[in-house]
Amino acid sequence: MTSREKHDRMANAIRFLSMDAVEKANSGHPGLPMGAADIATVLYTRFLKHDPQNPKWADRDRFVLSAGHGSMLLYSLLYLTGYEDITIDEIKNFRQLGSRTAGHPEYGYAAGIETTTGPLGQGIANAVGMAMAERLLSARYGDDLVNHYTYTLVGDGCLMEGISQEAIALAGHLKLNKLIVLFDDNNISIDGPVSLSDSTDQCARFAASGWNTMRADGHDPEAIAAAIEAARNSDRPTMIAFRTTIGFGSPHKAGTNKVHGSPLGADEVKATRQALGWTAEPFEVPSDILDEWRLAGLRSVKERGAWEKRLAAADAETRAEFERRMRGDLPEAFASAIVDYKRKLAANPPAVATRNASEMALEVINEAVPEMIGGSADLTGSNNTKTSQTKPVTPDDFSGRYIHYGIREHGMAAAMNGMALHGGIIPYSGTFMCFSDYARPSMRLASLMGIRSIFVMTHDSIGLGEDGPTHQPVEHMAALRAIPNHFVFRPADTVETAECWQVAVESAETPSTLALTRQKLAPVRIDFEEENLSARGAYELRSASDAAKVTIFASGSEVEIAVKAREALEARGIPTRVVSVPCFELFELQTPEYRKAIIGDAPVRVAIEAGIRMGWDSFIGIDGIFVGMTGFGASAPAPDLYKHFGITADAVVSAVEQRLA
Amino acid sequence: MTSREKHDRMANAIRFLSMDAVEKANSGHPGLPMGAADIATVLYTRFLKHDPQNPKWADRDRFVLSAGHGSMLLYSLLYLTGYEDITIDEIKNFRQLGSRTAGHPEYGYAAGIETTTGPLGQGIANAVGMAMAERLLSARYGDDLVNHYTYTLVGDGCLMEGISQEAIALAGHLKLNKLIVLFDDNNISIDGPVSLSDSTDQCARFAASGWNTMRADGHDPEAIAAAIEAARNSDRPTMIAFRTTIGFGSPHKAGTNKVHGSPLGADEVKATRQALGWTAEPFEVPSDILDEWRLAGLRSVKERGAWEKRLAAADAETRAEFERRMRGDLPEAFASAIVDYKRKLAANPPAVATRNASEMALEVINEAVPEMIGGSADLTGSNNTKTSQTKPVTPDDFSGRYIHYGIREHGMAAAMNGMALHGGIIPYSGTFMCFSDYARPSMRLASLMGIRSIFVMTHDSIGLGEDGPTHQPVEHMAALRAIPNHFVFRPADTVETAECWQVAVESAETPSTLALTRQKLAPVRIDFEEENLSARGAYELRSASDAAKVTIFASGSEVEIAVKAREALEARGIPTRVVSVPCFELFELQTPEYRKAIIGDAPVRVAIEAGIRMGWDSFIGIDGIFVGMTGFGASAPAPDLYKHFGITADAVVSAVEQRLA
Repeated sequence: MTSREKHDRMANAIRFLSMDAVEKANSGHPGLPMGAADIATVLYTRFLKHDPQNPKWADRDRFVLSAGHGSMLLYSLLYLTGYEDITIDEIKNFRQLGSRTAGHPEYGYAAGIETTTGPLGQGIANAVGMAMAERLLSARYGDDLVNHYTYTLVGDGCLMEGISQEAIALAGHLKLNKLIVLFDDNNISIDGPVSLSDSTDQCARFAASGWNTMRADGHDPEAIAAAIEAARNSDRPTMIAFRTTIGFGSPHKAGTNKVHGSPLGADEVKATRQALGWTAEPFEVPSDILDEWRLAGLRSVKERGAWEKRLAAADAETRAEFERRMRGDLPEAFASAIVDYKRKLAANPPAVATRNASEMALEVINEAVPEMIGGSADLTGSNNTKTSQTKPVTPDDFSGRYIHYGIREHGMAAAMNGMALHGGIIPYSGTFMCFSDYARPSMRLASLMGIRSIFVMTHDSIGLGEDGPTHQPVEHMAALRAIPNHFVFRPADTVETAECWQVAVESAETPSTLALTRQKLAPVRIDFEEENLSARGAYELRSASDAAKVTIFASGSEVEIAVKAREALEARGIPTRVVSVPCFELFELQTPEYRKAIIGDAPVRVAIEAGIRMGWDSFIGIDGIFVGMTGFGASAPAPDLYKHFGITADAVVSAVEQRLA
Repeated sequence: MTSREKHDRMANAIRFLSMDAVEKANSGHPGLPMGAADIATVLYTRFLKHDPQNPKWADRDRFVLSAGHGSMLLYSLLYLTGYEDITIDEIKNFRQLGSRTAGHPEYGYAAGIETTTGPLGQGIANAVGMAMAERLLSARYGDDLVNHYTYTLVGDGCLMEGISQEAIALAGHLKLNKLIVLFDDNNISIDGPVSLSDSTDQCARFAASGWNTMRADGHDPEAIAAAIEAARNSDRPTMIAFRTTIGFGSPHKAGTNKVHGSPLGADEVKATRQALGWTAEPFEVPSDILDEWRLAGLRSVKERGAWEKRLAAADAETRAEFERRMRGDLPEAFASAIVDYKRKLAANPPAVATRNASEMALEVINEAVPEMIGGSADLTGSNNTKTSQTKPVTPDDFSGRYIHYGIREHGMAAAMNGMALHGGIIPYSGTFMCFSDYARPSMRLASLMGIRSIFVMTHDSIGLGEDGPTHQPVEHMAALRAIPNHFVFRPADTVETAECWQVAVESAETPSTLALTRQKLAPVRIDFEEENLSARGAYELRSASDAAKVTIFASGSEVEIAVKAREALEARGIPTRVVSVPCFELFELQTPEYRKAIIGDAPVRVAIEAGIRMGWDSFIGIDGIFVGMTGFGASAPAPDLYKHFGITADAVVSAVEQRLA
């Protein structure tokens, strides 16, 4: 068997596992795995630094299948190279309930799946984040401990999505030379040839953002190897456009959209077997080929051993700190730093916007947690995400802790996800809350994956004022609360902001959004409390003077209004309590008893939030009084808007009085 | 006064109006209007075809200020060229409640504002849609009636946003040679120099997608004019990178981020007056300069007259049809075509997926409404958006009615908005519902503007099956319902789908989303009803056999389950009614009496939707039974998933029995 024959048979193993799995599931995407099998085989047998026995090795190369619909390519590679999680039974169980081999690669389902992909363009942007994490950690721990490549396989779809441009431009700017994009340039999209909808010269496009670019035959192993080798030696990120045939090997469907997203059918699979000279039964890999693959899976064992030795040789403190960061544990001093800070606040409660409160909290957190890496989508001065510790990262110096992401909310969020997935970093970053819509697909994926990306969203209501309805969140609190496994915090003052930040940083498996005001707020938490009350999601902030007739629920900037309304109602002899609700999701996690006590049994329930009612019914019921927005905002100074839209203590008082009359 | 002096003074009029307005509002963005004043002056005095007295002239050139924060540039131009809506008092009232001069340009606030901008990158993508509309209508009505340019002024921010790439690639592919992008290349972003976050060669980037590109001095009127002239004669879309100085004229702040987003301050305004030799009082434009501007405002009067004559000379039918389409009125036969179609359905109610039902309805609609222009983000076969009438548009032939948008959900939605804004077209287009997240910022703007963009979102739940949680909407119904002024339809069968489509097409001032299933559904609307019941938002689909003990509310694919559960409960002697809820928003618009009657007074209320509970509390109350999702989905065949997540008639029955026990 010549080396070329060996390569072909190893690649064909991927092709047939993929075809067979799709055929059995009667659903899936055989075209990409068949077309990209040669590229993947060269990458995994000659280049990728990984160890299937130690899949979490910190310094492994990362491989991201950005074109996630080709999941069988990844599952085949993991099975063939010997990852325990992906057995042949899992392959046979492709796309079935409870299997590790979901329709698209799902992070956490099996080791070797570095990120969840499927929504196009996300993977390449995750890969940019991983490559950034690599440079950031290498700047801290040196090449001895952190020095790996990030590869990502992308299709036309990934490159048409706008997020890819944000990722490409950011990577080019930061000169991420250890990032290598393998473009499966097969000229086919779902509707037909790419020429139906695109005429872009992708190499020229990447080059415009400072990338090294190449073209190569994606079915010639030596050409593939030479291109990857050249990419590894580039001083810039590299995109290799591999000309491939989708569904390579299928006599009647290769090179067409018919092979993209459905089973080939028994006849065509048979014909492909004949065409490629593959005689093995379905799901069977000839033992000599499986041996070759398993051998390939061992190729980095020595390298890992050497790395372990280097880690062992590092001084104890460095080693412990590196391992702590990679595990995602927090420094021991973190929680007490927050308590100390709250104690200071209580001594002299400041009246500041919660975006300023966030900056104050971050000063404490960034001091205690060195793996926090901040940034903003070009709104640094508005998001208040930069603290004294966070020197900006530049293309030539990754020792800093602050990323100027540019006006790229979507790419930013996906890159943050990539950093969180890489490990060793807790990414946070800011934009205006209205533009959470731009970042939403990546925020959803952070939730689905259960990773610690922290999104700072300032200017969280009509309180932003003059910029007007395009910039005023109205439905955004509800829309973000709708995402499962996502903590949406809307703190009311400096104390709550610190508490919410604490939960966000401590929640390793849930991403968080902090919704923060532009406008100044009066402090509502005056007395020092060691307990993190915000971690309850909702808690009684002010009790009623007697059996409560009214409970007012509010979040963020409207808690101040609730407190004022309570004072006015109490002055009118109406016992009123106030419940602050910094986080719906955390409240849902409390015991039924606690929740019942907080909801209480006052006959009148009111909620105040400068957003829509959706979601608040679970606190106040259908008959509750809601004081908030029913439509879009307007352009005017914030106090005028609060009056105009009737979000005032007076409005609350008169609504309550009407109800009690 | 030389011609250059005249130009300079006219441009300075923009600069000082902008500075003065921002100063008075004590908020706003003076830097862009000052930097781009020369470009805008050349465009409006020498090129732009428009008539301030007839601002809705169908064949006017469109000007889109994509960098919407520079709104004072546009307001100044509209005031100076004589648009009635923008008086000097409006300019003085910049950013105040009720003014036409909002912080960002708001469509509908004043004639001459062609679209709402502010969220970056939207304007350039709207402009692409407008340029598409121009070509589409020109292919139908000829250059005599439709032959205009679309100009858009963009900043670095617009070009960093991913959506711009989708727009650029689409425009390049379609060879939209009457689209001209004026890039205000001032090298400054909010955080500082663009070099903080970007190193892209924008000309090379546009060229990679087939654009004509140029560079010119953005402060030299002759260079500006020469570049625009060359752009107008290009056979491809053109991007001109104008090198400008942000805040041009400000002695101490020009060329820095200090002048981007805040007032210059009284001293600096004074210094700028001196530097530019401007002696007029605040908000005063010297009469000779105002005269020159007003004269410039008349430059297309003759051309409009000639156009009116050509329109008058067209045959009566053509003229009437052209005018109808541009008014946005529907053909008279439309409503009856839907009724006829419903009558046919009743004769033999088909069991199909609602995406197929949508295709069937579209066959009827597209036949009756020729201005419907369809498309898909590369999911034509899955979204079922293509009908027999819709031949694809190609770069060389715009007579078709179907756009292959590519994998560009965001750019697609924004281009649809541009088409709707242009007039003469009703755009609809499809993607998977999960990827509504990608399009969301543009969907929100459609709602804010109140325009008729129709979004087809198929694969609307776990019912999509094997593709798994990345592709399964869970929170999307809630998140879309959260957007004000947006009809979110989730029809249950062919009849409801036709009814929902009818409302969507008839709603000229509200965008719509149709959430449609991948999986086949049994018909639930068996009898012919002339009335459009779905237009009520919710209606009683099945009555109870006696005084109802249970009301089951459901939407879309879960109505079938509700009907089955009702049968089972009735069989157990529990009188049960079923309310179908195809559209929350329309239900909200009904009379309180109607709503009360539909909610009813059955002691047990149940809602079924294969999504999260959020929003349903308004039907069932806090104590209502909700059968749906509480987290993300999974990868498996759809029937397995419905069972796994307990969204079945059996689950409903046992929950009700438990409650009644």
